[in-house]
Amino acid sequence: MHVSLGHKAYSPFMNRLLIIGAGRSATALIQYALDKATEFGWHVIVADASLETAQLKVGNHPNGQAVWLDADKPDYRHDLISRADVVISLLPPQLHYEVARECIRLRKHLITASYLSQQLVGLRDQVEAHRLLFMGEMGLDPGIDHMSAMQQIHRISEEGGTLHTFRSYTGGLVAPESDDNPWHYKISWNPRNVVTAGQGTAQYLEDNKLKYLPYNRLFQAYQLVDIAGMGSYEMYPNRDSLLYRDIYGLGDIPNLLRGTLRARGFCDAWAALVDIGLTDTQFPIVDSENLTYYEWVNAYTTGTRGTLRERLAEMLQIDPDGDVMEKLDWLGLMSRKKIELPNATPALILEKLLLDKWQLQPHDRDMVIMQHEFEYTKNKKQYLHTSTLVMKGDNSQDTAMSRLVGLPLGIFARLVMTGQIHKTGVHIPVMPEVYQPVLEELKQYGVEFIEQTLQLN
Amino acid sequence: MHVSLGHKAYSPFMNRLLIIGAGRSATALIQYALDKATEFGWHVIVADASLETAQLKVGNHPNGQAVWLDADKPDYRHDLISRADVVISLLPPQLHYEVARECIRLRKHLITASYLSQQLVGLRDQVEAHRLLFMGEMGLDPGIDHMSAMQQIHRISEEGGTLHTFRSYTGGLVAPESDDNPWHYKISWNPRNVVTAGQGTAQYLEDNKLKYLPYNRLFQAYQLVDIAGMGSYEMYPNRDSLLYRDIYGLGDIPNLLRGTLRARGFCDAWAALVDIGLTDTQFPIVDSENLTYYEWVNAYTTGTRGTLRERLAEMLQIDPDGDVMEKLDWLGLMSRKKIELPNATPALILEKLLLDKWQLQPHDRDMVIMQHEFEYTKNKKQYLHTSTLVMKGDNSQDTAMSRLVGLPLGIFARLVMTGQIHKTGVHIPVMPEVYQPVLEELKQYGVEFIEQTLQLN
Repeated sequence: MHVSLGHKAYSPFMNRLLIIGAGRSATALIQYALDKATEFGWHVIVADASLETAQLKVGNHPNGQAVWLDADKPDYRHDLISRADVVISLLPPQLHYEVARECIRLRKHLITASYLSQQLVGLRDQVEAHRLLFMGEMGLDPGIDHMSAMQQIHRISEEGGTLHTFRSYTGGLVAPESDDNPWHYKISWNPRNVVTAGQGTAQYLEDNKLKYLPYNRLFQAYQLVDIAGMGSYEMYPNRDSLLYRDIYGLGDIPNLLRGTLRARGFCDAWAALVDIGLTDTQFPIVDSENLTYYEWVNAYTTGTRGTLRERLAEMLQIDPDGDVMEKLDWLGLMSRKKIELPNATPALILEKLLLDKWQLQPHDRDMVIMQHEFEYTKNKKQYLHTSTLVMKGDNSQDTAMSRLVGLPLGIFARLVMTGQIHKTGVHIPVMPEVYQPVLEELKQYGVEFIEQTLQLN
Repeated sequence: MHVSLGHKAYSPFMNRLLIIGAGRSATALIQYALDKATEFGWHVIVADASLETAQLKVGNHPNGQAVWLDADKPDYRHDLISRADVVISLLPPQLHYEVARECIRLRKHLITASYLSQQLVGLRDQVEAHRLLFMGEMGLDPGIDHMSAMQQIHRISEEGGTLHTFRSYTGGLVAPESDDNPWHYKISWNPRNVVTAGQGTAQYLEDNKLKYLPYNRLFQAYQLVDIAGMGSYEMYPNRDSLLYRDIYGLGDIPNLLRGTLRARGFCDAWAALVDIGLTDTQFPIVDSENLTYYEWVNAYTTGTRGTLRERLAEMLQIDPDGDVMEKLDWLGLMSRKKIELPNATPALILEKLLLDKWQLQPHDRDMVIMQHEFEYTKNKKQYLHTSTLVMKGDNSQDTAMSRLVGLPLGIFARLVMTGQIHKTGVHIPVMPEVYQPVLEELKQYGVEFIEQTLQLN
């Protein structure tokens, strides 16, 4: 017997999907899930801390249900998870562990777009014992980056090539046609992560040597990279490159780097914000709500001569009329407006400012760029293979970011629920049986890499 | 009726004291409490995660009992607290809240040496409702600093003076006679806090202007201060100065600064560690256990020419044969020894190294320096009043640090238990009825400030 919930019933292995989190990055996922719900007769529950947000995204879909999730009420979460076959969690990463433990207790599969934590990896034996599948890093970055890179790494290896360089860059950017500010940047993802990006120690390999870049030098040490068809972008290394050396099967590769892309001019200006001290997350500014941005920034400078602009320029050793100072000024860092955020860290004050200044306007299009570079030797010849993905959103709701985070989650849930995935355990998507069908279906949604091979000698 | 537990019974209001935590900073407190237990017929329970540590410090004292505390077992904690009248918690600050809630449920007074958290302040109404007293910041810094400063601030005000400058410095240092390394520093308190000192944004007032110093500039911006009878020390501002403006009743003071003292030459060398990136707490170094210190530090440098020492000096723009480089080299940062710490952040790797290199040897004496500077106007004349405390320990167990953190806790517990304190609520020790008897009794233990007043015009 099977229960038909949609108007077009199918005989599924599983037909109940729970999506936890209906925020910014869930739009495309929920749309995909509801479309498939119609096709396969699924019941899709969308749970969010804001019932209104969940309702807005589910609409009147006959196979969808919006519910309110109070993360502090474990009983309620237990009840929700018990009503699903597969759970997709878009919660903040630190909340996945409790969801994961509930999924084990209730024997449910779990899919997330977040970095796999050591806590989650620690559940491996229990997940395996119950023949469950927990798939992490199934979004854009991490997610599509793993899948598209592994497809080429496996292909090059199968064709007899020896890889000696792998570099991979991703940027969540604004499309040129919507780029109307001096930073050439708008926010299409978690604003908190925009402000704290790069905190930690970036680690990569160059000519077989370990390289570390600490936060205080990271944005000064950017490199320029050419993106096929798009021109030149600034790139700074991510802290996680080395984590993927073994998982990608690149144990002895001499050059390995994962990085973030930004428009030209961004990194020097961001380095100035870091240098002033405006990205500190550790300690609140006393009495922050009563200060103006001017008073706040002024307190970082020394002396009293000249204007704030001149004192800042002197401290940063930059041209007071140059591009960097223009960007700082444009943000409103020297404005007499009140901050109006009580007990806020510098990072929180900056986040509030950027949320306003770098907001995607309703008709703005975001743009995601991902590019992998593989240098390898085959039959004594050197090759450079480049995989490039450029995708633009339609507007501030239907963003490329939301599609590229949400579609892999949805597609993979579909594969699991229709019985096409037989893996169990705790994984990230680096194996052909996962990345091949996901990348294949992504093409239907316009997610397709341009592949180019160049012989270097 | 009263129960006599000691051999020399007294008629106390309360006679059961629980001390949670028997580590580094508890030695003098436990000794004091056991002495008073004899005098007043108390029963003192000392609980620690290591039963051995607790037993070692309690010894065979007839009024003392060492017990094992498993912080993960709330029932056991509940039982322990139920057996006390007053609780002194030396747990890490983030664990105080649960103890505090238990103290409210069980109607017990609580004393700690940690900064009062917003969470604890939030319990104010409940504490007040049950006529309990929670006293925070009752150690050295915070603790003795508040009490000794408030005594002078109140005195100057009562004598008709108007304060326009308050600066207060504390350093946990090594005594000159035990100073045998190029950093002129050894660790007498929490090594974690030594490594992460200054992370955040230092905030102070200068000529009525707000001043912020972020971590990346903090150790470069040290000032020299003269300590009465001790010579010149380096001082960098603490992040918390402004927090005490209102609590000290200094709402409109134009100059306010709290700072940390270090020996000459320390700050430039520590700034180099920060600049290299070695104090980062945010992200683990991949494969850290298999690296040597040389490989670790080398990965932060660029280029391959010259020695690591030369590359480091070039990156830091310092003399390769100068004092700073001598200090870095002495730490073993260029040694071929393995790190042997898995999955460790730079800060953790550095902590391990410093614990070894900066360890107090058994006969080493530590030294605490505290100095307050008050500039004020009285009858149109300008004065500078200086309060200076210099205290040395006897050896690596009986440290000045342990005495200065522990004695105020013990003395205040004694005052509460013998019915001499009638305050209720959540407080820090800034009121005369608290600081006067505590400072008075501290003198018996050699804790006495040298007070000097200088007329400036």
